[in-house]
Amino acid sequence: MTLPGSVGLVQTEIARLFTVDEPLRLANGETLGPVDVAYETYGTLSAAKDNAVFICHALTGDAHAAGLHAGAKRPGWWDNLIGPGKPLDTDRFFVISANLLGGCQGTTGPATIDQATGRAYGLGFPLLDMADFVTVHRQLLAHLGIERLLAALGGSLGGMQVLQWALTYPEQVTNAAIVAASSRLTAQNIAFSAVARRAIMDDPDFHDGRYAEQGVVPRLGLRTARMMAHITYLSEDAFSEKFGRNPHPERDKPGFGIDFAVESYLDYQGRVFLDRFDALSYLYLSRVMDYFDPFNRSDATALVEACPVNFLVMSFDTDWRFSTEHSRRIVKHLQNAAQPVTFRDIPSSWGHDSFLLPLQRYHDTLRAWFDRSLREGLR
Amino acid sequence: MTLPGSVGLVQTEIARLFTVDEPLRLANGETLGPVDVAYETYGTLSAAKDNAVFICHALTGDAHAAGLHAGAKRPGWWDNLIGPGKPLDTDRFFVISANLLGGCQGTTGPATIDQATGRAYGLGFPLLDMADFVTVHRQLLAHLGIERLLAALGGSLGGMQVLQWALTYPEQVTNAAIVAASSRLTAQNIAFSAVARRAIMDDPDFHDGRYAEQGVVPRLGLRTARMMAHITYLSEDAFSEKFGRNPHPERDKPGFGIDFAVESYLDYQGRVFLDRFDALSYLYLSRVMDYFDPFNRSDATALVEACPVNFLVMSFDTDWRFSTEHSRRIVKHLQNAAQPVTFRDIPSSWGHDSFLLPLQRYHDTLRAWFDRSLREGLR
Repeated sequence: MTLPGSVGLVQTEIARLFTVDEPLRLANGETLGPVDVAYETYGTLSAAKDNAVFICHALTGDAHAAGLHAGAKRPGWWDNLIGPGKPLDTDRFFVISANLLGGCQGTTGPATIDQATGRAYGLGFPLLDMADFVTVHRQLLAHLGIERLLAALGGSLGGMQVLQWALTYPEQVTNAAIVAASSRLTAQNIAFSAVARRAIMDDPDFHDGRYAEQGVVPRLGLRTARMMAHITYLSEDAFSEKFGRNPHPERDKPGFGIDFAVESYLDYQGRVFLDRFDALSYLYLSRVMDYFDPFNRSDATALVEACPVNFLVMSFDTDWRFSTEHSRRIVKHLQNAAQPVTFRDIPSSWGHDSFLLPLQRYHDTLRAWFDRSLREGLR
Repeated sequence: MTLPGSVGLVQTEIARLFTVDEPLRLANGETLGPVDVAYETYGTLSAAKDNAVFICHALTGDAHAAGLHAGAKRPGWWDNLIGPGKPLDTDRFFVISANLLGGCQGTTGPATIDQATGRAYGLGFPLLDMADFVTVHRQLLAHLGIERLLAALGGSLGGMQVLQWALTYPEQVTNAAIVAASSRLTAQNIAFSAVARRAIMDDPDFHDGRYAEQGVVPRLGLRTARMMAHITYLSEDAFSEKFGRNPHPERDKPGFGIDFAVESYLDYQGRVFLDRFDALSYLYLSRVMDYFDPFNRSDATALVEACPVNFLVMSFDTDWRFSTEHSRRIVKHLQNAAQPVTFRDIPSSWGHDSFLLPLQRYHDTLRAWFDRSLREGLR
């Protein structure tokens, strides 16, 4: 089966990148091993290995960014962007997408069995840092025999990872695209994540993180967390446009159930999330975002000043999860560090979720940027 | 003990306003009785009974708006506004503040014992409408021997009640001040309340609303609801100014506890709320707000057109719970109905909570408006 513009059938691969004997060394000094990483690739690596693009996913993303898994109806989460002829054109680029350390979609995370104990790590899993995500994905590149990336691209948390990668290993990243991201969460940003974590940990089925051993999942808390998060992913106008004050079609009489269409939407988003995401991963990955603050170090830009990266920073004008101001701050820091930066604030009515949508100006900008990166090649 | 500017020691009174035999008739056609109402008054009613001002409280407010309860350290929630010499000057006005029907601070609500069953109403309490709040408080006025109000003033949900009151009984309300309110919640507004209700009802201690009989309270769900709500009560800038990314002073090492100052604030706000608010009241009162949409009726403005009310509509420019746009919409509807409307959008960095704060321009505006109302008197 060939779908126009699709990379077609794909599957997630798992690579063991660190072992007990040669463990991952984390930013906080701890070690972790073994560490497996789930990833997918699309397109063909050139003989010169000069067309690799790394995709960094957002908080609840996974390695399956494009194409179809066997039997699945829905393609990968960034399928509108990645494929033959698409802005990230797999006829020309070799695209790598990997699940994050601490995630729950194939890469080692808190739900993984700790070989030392025979039990899931749970809250015994080490606290992570954005740098650890980069360390692990660099190891994946080495595993794939790729030394340097033509580009790295990420949205939201993924954009934060791209920023970390470019600042600390600029020689490995010729072009870095940071979309709808932040270099430091605000108190309000942290507050939303704090309430989400509170809901998860308050669920009696959380069992101090040992829920798997009890054969349960903190479903209700995770659902509340996801419902709340979804409010922040859309602009207020997008909610009004999509749902307004429309009643839920199945509303019988007023009560405390699903009376309004917007309540049905949140309910749906909360429920489908439970089938694909782990509560502990939510805790770990959201906390990495809270602590991320790369420019708040005196040596933050020394490496990148010596080895400039072509940065593309993009925001969406109705994004209030990570507003345009977050992107402007990143741009300012990079400009102060004498980096070449292209900044685009894209008009969109959809808020934070815009980075996942096929918006014309957004995709045109990315297409032009990728085309240029290919013309100019690795530095 | 005399405190300058304070109404001094006060206590909450309870009046039985409806009985089983003469029950309250609700907007939905059901009846409810008995109904008690908790209220406080400050100042002295003039012989002509022409200086009465009614205070309508917000979602989680109560009758105790000003002065001190015996033994208490904190004054009523609007004490900065109400008192001798204050903008709402109790040397000149007679101020009435009453707890809402469906509330939990002395007025009959879902936690009240249903005399027909001997058990708390729970979810058997009837669903309420904004009109029911007005019906009950009109009965309180009758009980106090007051026919007409010189003014009604309310913030947030309280402002919505004032709007309802003025639109349906304009002959009773010469002046109506509507602060930080809305005439129709947006999908996003409803979404926040939906998640809060979800958290409450998902708490295993909710017991389908019969938690009191189990000797428990859905504390965790109510806390989550309150924590989330507090995010919406402050502007993002206010959170940044108050807390920034400051660590919690007692932070030991990073984890999933209270690492940041903003997390400590939310935790505190969530905990203190549990001592004073009932989960079922949260459901009932928030749902009234969701359904409120008074201008979405063909006859919405007929009464007020025949008997104009002097409206004051105020918003705060950083309020994103009920943004200035909500107030502008109210103003537009009222102007279309040929009402005299004064509109003020007050600059404030504090967001929705501004209506509770002693902001100079805000209080000056209210003071001038109350002064004028007294000069002009009842219509």
